[in-house]
Amino acid sequence: MEGKLMEDELFKAFTTYAMIVILKMMLMALLTVYYRLTRGAFMNEEDVARKPAEERKKLLRADSNVERVRRCHQNDLENVIPFVLIGLFYSLTGPELSAAVLHFRVFAGSRLFHTVAYVCALPQPCRGLSWMVGLFTTASMAYQVLSTVLTL
Amino acid sequence: MEGKLMEDELFKAFTTYAMIVILKMMLMALLTVYYRLTRGAFMNEEDVARKPAEERKKLLRADSNVERVRRCHQNDLENVIPFVLIGLFYSLTGPELSAAVLHFRVFAGSRLFHTVAYVCALPQPCRGLSWMVGLFTTASMAYQVLSTVLTL
Amino acid sequence: MEGKLMEDELFKAFTTYAMIVILKMMLMALLTVYYRLTRGAFMNEEDVARKPAEERKKLLRADSNVERVRRCHQNDLENVIPFVLIGLFYSLTGPELSAAVLHFRVFAGSRLFHTVAYVCALPQPCRGLSWMVGLFTTASMAYQVLSTVLTL
Repeated sequence: MEGKLMEDELFKAFTTYAMIVILKMMLMALLTVYYRLTRGAFMNEEDVARKPAEERKKLLRADSNVERVRRCHQNDLENVIPFVLIGLFYSLTGPELSAAVLHFRVFAGSRLFHTVAYVCALPQPCRGLSWMVGLFTTASMAYQVLSTVLTL
Repeated sequence: MEGKLMEDELFKAFTTYAMIVILKMMLMALLTVYYRLTRGAFMNEEDVARKPAEERKKLLRADSNVERVRRCHQNDLENVIPFVLIGLFYSLTGPELSAAVLHFRVFAGSRLFHTVAYVCALPQPCRGLSWMVGLFTTASMAYQVLSTVLTL
Repeated sequence: MEGKLMEDELFKAFTTYAMIVILKMMLMALLTVYYRLTRGAFMNEEDVARKPAEERKKLLRADSNVERVRRCHQNDLENVIPFVLIGLFYSLTGPELSAAVLHFRVFAGSRLFHTVAYVCALPQPCRGLSWMVGLFTTASMAYQVLSTVLTL
């Protein structure tokens, strides 16, 4: 059973791109930790318990870089997870391979660019456009899932 | 392979309702953008870079409508994604079609009402009850998944 | 069709552990509500509309316990959902049963301990280590998915 789905060319392509965007999303957590440690900006009292008492208060603060990475992470949760879920249904409706791979590539590319645009604070509309490209790609897959399911 | 799962009446029903709630969740992002633009409330400096310098500070603010829509979006992430994931396992355990469709419809209905209750700030317990109905529906599916998997 | 996947020993094990961590994640919402009610800390005006006018302002506040549980819930969203999605692909690549079950158990254990460490504010590195164990387990599954998909 397991082998069957993973022998399918389209499902393998979907799996590859889904893994890329999920792993990219998970990297944001590591980037948040990196900024928290280098900028000295923590949220929980136990995280600064070993510091001298007078430093602790100063370390329990919001840093603009940390918050920026967290917003980017949140945006990934709001966009990458719907892509993976909708893409799973989409892959099961048996779309044309080339059209499907185009969707996956455009989405993955748009999210990679979105992350660079967000973390590096590139001038708008870099971030806005890359976000919209990802959104429209997901909407296009959703449209095809619904038109397949509702007419079959 | 792909065709097989999507030829199943129950899986098609699940796909339809899953798409409805995922797309509804994604609409919250567009609603957030709409409120950010109409209320003039932004989070990132690059979003207001083209405005006159004296306006910029004023535009980097939290607006109560924007925050309300964002909380509703967050609540969707916390409830809709578990529904889709648990519903996927549930659909694969081969439940009775009518019972399954009832679960999907009650969940989708409760989340649509929850969104109206949240965004329009309807008096409680509108929002609380619709949230609980969705939660119990998901829990009911989870119970059936676990009882199927653990006894087989 | 449905029966087939759920007859597979490995997929049943994955389903069981996925349900455990998803349900644990959903419990965080109930814990948030519990703290909001007992500490008197709300976010929405309609939630305090029936209280006397002079109390309302005081109840619309952030409480440190509520915020702690919410951060734990958010951390679950960022870690549990990638585990379930990556684990689904991983289960479909046909890994060895014992290795797969070890991954699922270590992840579920690490997240249960992470929740205790977060909510009870255990001294670091309890929370940090349990978070990293979960992250590495998910990364290990992701590595095996990618090496299967890219070489087949």
